[in-house]
Amino acid sequence: MMKTNPGRFFEDYSLGQVLEHAVPRTVSGGERALYHALYPARHALYSSDAFAQACGLKAAPIDDLAAFHVVFGKTVPDVSLNAVANLGYAEGRWLAPVWPGDTLRSVSEVIGLKQNSNGKTGVVWVRTRGLNQHDAVVMEYCRWVMVRKKDADAPAPETVVPDLKTVLAPGDLVIPEGLDFTGYDFTLAGEPHRWGDYEIGETIDHVDGVTVEEAEHMLATRLWQNTAKVHFDLTFRPEGRLIYGGHVISMARALSFNGLANAQMIVGLNGGAHANPCFAGDTVKAWTEVLDKAETAAPGVGAIRLRLVATKGGEPFVLKGDDGRYSPEVLLDLDYWALMPL
Amino acid sequence: MMKTNPGRFFEDYSLGQVLEHAVPRTVSGGERALYHALYPARHALYSSDAFAQACGLKAAPIDDLAAFHVVFGKTVPDVSLNAVANLGYAEGRWLAPVWPGDTLRSVSEVIGLKQNSNGKTGVVWVRTRGLNQHDAVVMEYCRWVMVRKKDADAPAPETVVPDLKTVLAPGDLVIPEGLDFTGYDFTLAGEPHRWGDYEIGETIDHVDGVTVEEAEHMLATRLWQNTAKVHFDLTFRPEGRLIYGGHVISMARALSFNGLANAQMIVGLNGGAHANPCFAGDTVKAWTEVLDKAETAAPGVGAIRLRLVATKGGEPFVLKGDDGRYSPEVLLDLDYWALMPL
Amino acid sequence: MMKTNPGRFFEDYSLGQVLEHAVPRTVSGGERALYHALYPARHALYSSDAFAQACGLKAAPIDDLAAFHVVFGKTVPDVSLNAVANLGYAEGRWLAPVWPGDTLRSVSEVIGLKQNSNGKTGVVWVRTRGLNQHDAVVMEYCRWVMVRKKDADAPAPETVVPDLKTVLAPGDLVIPEGLDFTGYDFTLAGEPHRWGDYEIGETIDHVDGVTVEEAEHMLATRLWQNTAKVHFDLTFRPEGRLIYGGHVISMARALSFNGLANAQMIVGLNGGAHANPCFAGDTVKAWTEVLDKAETAAPGVGAIRLRLVATKGGEPFVLKGDDGRYSPEVLLDLDYWALMPL
Repeated sequence: MMKTNPGRFFEDYSLGQVLEHAVPRTVSGGERALYHALYPARHALYSSDAFAQACGLKAAPIDDLAAFHVVFGKTVPDVSLNAVANLGYAEGRWLAPVWPGDTLRSVSEVIGLKQNSNGKTGVVWVRTRGLNQHDAVVMEYCRWVMVRKKDADAPAPETVVPDLKTVLAPGDLVIPEGLDFTGYDFTLAGEPHRWGDYEIGETIDHVDGVTVEEAEHMLATRLWQNTAKVHFDLTFRPEGRLIYGGHVISMARALSFNGLANAQMIVGLNGGAHANPCFAGDTVKAWTEVLDKAETAAPGVGAIRLRLVATKGGEPFVLKGDDGRYSPEVLLDLDYWALMPL
Repeated sequence: MMKTNPGRFFEDYSLGQVLEHAVPRTVSGGERALYHALYPARHALYSSDAFAQACGLKAAPIDDLAAFHVVFGKTVPDVSLNAVANLGYAEGRWLAPVWPGDTLRSVSEVIGLKQNSNGKTGVVWVRTRGLNQHDAVVMEYCRWVMVRKKDADAPAPETVVPDLKTVLAPGDLVIPEGLDFTGYDFTLAGEPHRWGDYEIGETIDHVDGVTVEEAEHMLATRLWQNTAKVHFDLTFRPEGRLIYGGHVISMARALSFNGLANAQMIVGLNGGAHANPCFAGDTVKAWTEVLDKAETAAPGVGAIRLRLVATKGGEPFVLKGDDGRYSPEVLLDLDYWALMPL
Repeated sequence: MMKTNPGRFFEDYSLGQVLEHAVPRTVSGGERALYHALYPARHALYSSDAFAQACGLKAAPIDDLAAFHVVFGKTVPDVSLNAVANLGYAEGRWLAPVWPGDTLRSVSEVIGLKQNSNGKTGVVWVRTRGLNQHDAVVMEYCRWVMVRKKDADAPAPETVVPDLKTVLAPGDLVIPEGLDFTGYDFTLAGEPHRWGDYEIGETIDHVDGVTVEEAEHMLATRLWQNTAKVHFDLTFRPEGRLIYGGHVISMARALSFNGLANAQMIVGLNGGAHANPCFAGDTVKAWTEVLDKAETAAPGVGAIRLRLVATKGGEPFVLKGDDGRYSPEVLLDLDYWALMPL
């Protein structure tokens, strides 16, 4: 009997199937320190217990994207080991902060299936939930991937394409319990710009860049226990190790501090595309477009919807060409909601 | 007076000599996070406090091999600074888990000496013990190294070759207090294969590989406070920095998760050989052969004896050539006992 | 309104101005583990809680230089983003240990200004203090940098050059409360050499070397939240990423363990020069000259003043050429006070 995990193929998925992903993970100050070593992360709420406490939280949470990576990493052996492409994200929500000492695990449900017309691949939609040791859902998101069939003759499942929101409504966002920005310290946070200072349509060039190295993206990707071969094994992919898309997300988000230091907490992920692959030696830069703004019920807390674009060269604010395709320098196009002091 | 440590030469050792190694080390969640960033480690018992507690432990211990590296690293300035070759290991046992917050130190006793016929080098056998802050021995192992003489005219010591077990008997293994696999969660652990599913003689190709980078092995080796020059200084070794053998052990063990996810705890090290040197750029892969199986007194816990082989290319399951020598692609040949749910 | 931080130019500083630097940072065992992975750090007081407790402290503090880097990193966006050169340090004192769990922030005061005769740049002197969550000052130092003017026509400020001590007197040094070296364990510390064994004028070649890698210095520099472009962005500096000077300081200090294992705590920074830039691929080595010695009021504790020199080649003990300039192989010339057992 074969002992290693061959991964699931398209015909191995069925609608409503629940995948309990393996290897729960306890996070600590170690993961936080590594996150700050791997990315130029500076958002004060995640850097300082004292700052977080002044905002009504019990301590600095683990970075929202670190929580996402931990939850995501667990799904790789069950969802994307035989994936041909990572097609999209939707309805991502952070429902509760993750604290040092918490143990996270992930569960996914298959919510959509569609065999491609070539008969060789199909699209699988899953809704993934990350749970802590108290079985509380700390985050959830939908993701769809193109997966190979093992047996081209396997019958096609009934096509079910889930009806996913293209954008979360402000009312869908969950504000962490106790969050209060009325006494927010803009000086310690690093920038004076408050929610009211940003206008819909405004664009920000985050200016800074990081030329990425092989050792760094592998450290990061392993830390999230994402073990997809393409990120690690040059004999498997002699043309170059592909950098985990989440590494680009975290790098771009951290770079966006310069101009968005007060976009403290990520609470919603409306969508995202890994437009082009990233390799060691690329210099990642980022720019942002303000897409929307909304008020929230929490004291002093506004929500801001941002398009975060990571590039590996080229001019800022160029997203797509005349053909409607992403420019070759664009690595990431991410649409998210963050919380900001009013 | 010379202030730097020249290391010990062969004539500096005497039978029964006790070496109290320097620089005790407190380990924390930081070491655990780094271990997971440096190696694709996924064994659930070391990743999740909740999983470890469900197995009867108070929390997730520090990885067994991390404990080994910390204990081993302290011996380098006293044992292997002038070593020509690391010849072997035997009678390695993990006697108690290491928890975050524990402080480890190492003590070695010289248990064997044999001058080589060339008169220029000799073999030194030591038994090393790692102790925690309560002076409890957490692990022990024997190791023998070939060491240079400083003065070729120094008299040869009486030859004493210790009688070391080539294999630990199942009764020699110490099962951590409280360990109970009767309620073991195979889904969270990542694979369904239990102790009864493995057959003696069975071989497993662990499939995954990691192309190693300079920055990674140096981070790891420093973390264990192993400061042997050959691993760090290109002016000392212009032909390439040699990767610490323990880095290969941890990499191979982590890769073996894929097929041996339930070989949770390492409790015995029967022997090991660093067959060929490893350098940055090599892609490390691993395969395993099941050598033996045994029952234990702990509830639901079986012991399995495994040969773990790390390679840098070539086909799996090839260990030695017709001449009885290790194939040039073989990096490591390790013989250990692990604990697995029945 | 521009949202990103353009940094301050020479005309933006005024005498007596107080800069409250952003992004407070909570440190934990994670930062400690990373410090030990990034540098071959082995001083026992910072490695072992048990050793530190035997010396009268409540636990192993965060490494003194890690505390310095955290405090320093916060000043970069306000002090040195438009700096042309880092000119010097003086009057650096460590006033209280930093413990895991502490939150640090930094405040600087402008204590000197002098426009250069070219009218395009000026020198700014600041005194920076690092404070913990109890508003206690944990360290302070003066630093002066050459900064560009944005507008060459901006009027020159009145020239004020602060009167800084070239060397701290022994009485200026603050000994951590409770520190007691009367029961110091030289075996666990790693070397037998006590304060009385070092002579003024003595030089020590620390022998070991580390060939540095891009990934390592970027991990380190990010960990301290120092985001100066020159360290990260190859498109900004195609001739090579400049390694953060503090990386060289920590590397040299860690290498100096071999010969100075008992120079446990750094309590004073008299001065320092980054003599030449360091790049990935350079092999950093270090040597020390004993400059002075002094007794202290703490039991068993002596102070020793050391010149620590980091090099990237060349012979040890060569500092300057006949022209009085630093030799091209010298990276760092640091003058500090450390505490050592009598």
